[in-house]
Amino acid sequence: MIEPLERAISELKKLPGIGQKTAERLIFHLLTRDREEVQKLSRALNALTEEVGRCEVCGNFSTGDTCEICSDPQRDRGKICVVSRPWDIPKVESTGKYDGLYHVLGGLINPIEDVSPEDLTIEDLIHRAKNEEVEEVILALEPKTEGESTSMFLVKKLRELDVEVSQIAQGIPVGRELEFMDKATLGKAFEGRRGVD
Amino acid sequence: MIEPLERAISELKKLPGIGQKTAERLIFHLLTRDREEVQKLSRALNALTEEVGRCEVCGNFSTGDTCEICSDPQRDRGKICVVSRPWDIPKVESTGKYDGLYHVLGGLINPIEDVSPEDLTIEDLIHRAKNEEVEEVILALEPKTEGESTSMFLVKKLRELDVEVSQIAQGIPVGRELEFMDKATLGKAFEGRRGVD
Repeated sequence: MIEPLERAISELKKLPGIGQKTAERLIFHLLTRDREEVQKLSRALNALTEEVGRCEVCGNFSTGDTCEICSDPQRDRGKICVVSRPWDIPKVESTGKYDGLYHVLGGLINPIEDVSPEDLTIEDLIHRAKNEEVEEVILALEPKTEGESTSMFLVKKLRELDVEVSQIAQGIPVGRELEFMDKATLGKAFEGRRGVD
Repeated sequence: MIEPLERAISELKKLPGIGQKTAERLIFHLLTRDREEVQKLSRALNALTEEVGRCEVCGNFSTGDTCEICSDPQRDRGKICVVSRPWDIPKVESTGKYDGLYHVLGGLINPIEDVSPEDLTIEDLIHRAKNEEVEEVILALEPKTEGESTSMFLVKKLRELDVEVSQIAQGIPVGRELEFMDKATLGKAFEGRRGVD
């Protein structure tokens, strides 16, 4: 195959979930499209490197020094929701159930992969919780081992401050049948049961 | 989500087999990669539009006026293999069983999708078969209705000239069990049986 095709295929193959066949299919598709369309894709990818940085307050993706959420005067500055990665933020936003600020940890504590608390933005979080008008810190980390132990670590640190700490509920996902739930999830659902009027 | 992310996701979603979730996953992955890596991908895609054209002889992808194969003096100029699309060429090349030239039709005759013989490069093929030192034209079109009827059309046209016309064999794919073959394929395999020494 000619060099520009080889090169495009090999660059695409570096992406997760894209193997040789998928990369070839995508490139062949691009070669049948209008030149302008391919250039739009190329420019959009390049813009990610030129225009997108991180919010210096919360770590969210941002085109400016502070992100859309941190600079929005409508947001409730009394709440900080702690997430592991910046792409968890649009997920939480999509629920429409949260109007506070965020804090991106940058990962989860994981001794096996050599991620210790110092590798995360935990100090910044403590600093924000101490110095800003924060009333509640909501932990929204993944309910798996690393998420749980990171949450426990944060709870210990945050307890020393004058803030409420909460954790998003674990339980049965909407629309799922009890029959097919693992016992850990079902157990959490029982622990987290709430009184009904 | 911020505009550059929205834009990159919407451009990626135009590719076949890439939905919202996959596009988000790819973009989030790119945002965690080195800026230089993302720029390499962006440049490789742009190079497709700047560097890749079509061979003016056979229609293969090419960086010059004529493709690597057409301009290779080692290739057997007595044979032309007819394929539907340029990406069929690397497939045939990968077998190592063919050393002739190619001709890309640009599609298959398909009355339903309004593709008639004039939309394909059939006239160019006839012209090449007449004027070049061609001895054999090998039809390598897909063994489905449109491929079959295009092959039949080409056979009729080429018979008038002084060239041999052949078609690649249809039969049982290597490694497949008879039990799971459809009867059309099995029928073709019987029709195409060859004597064994």
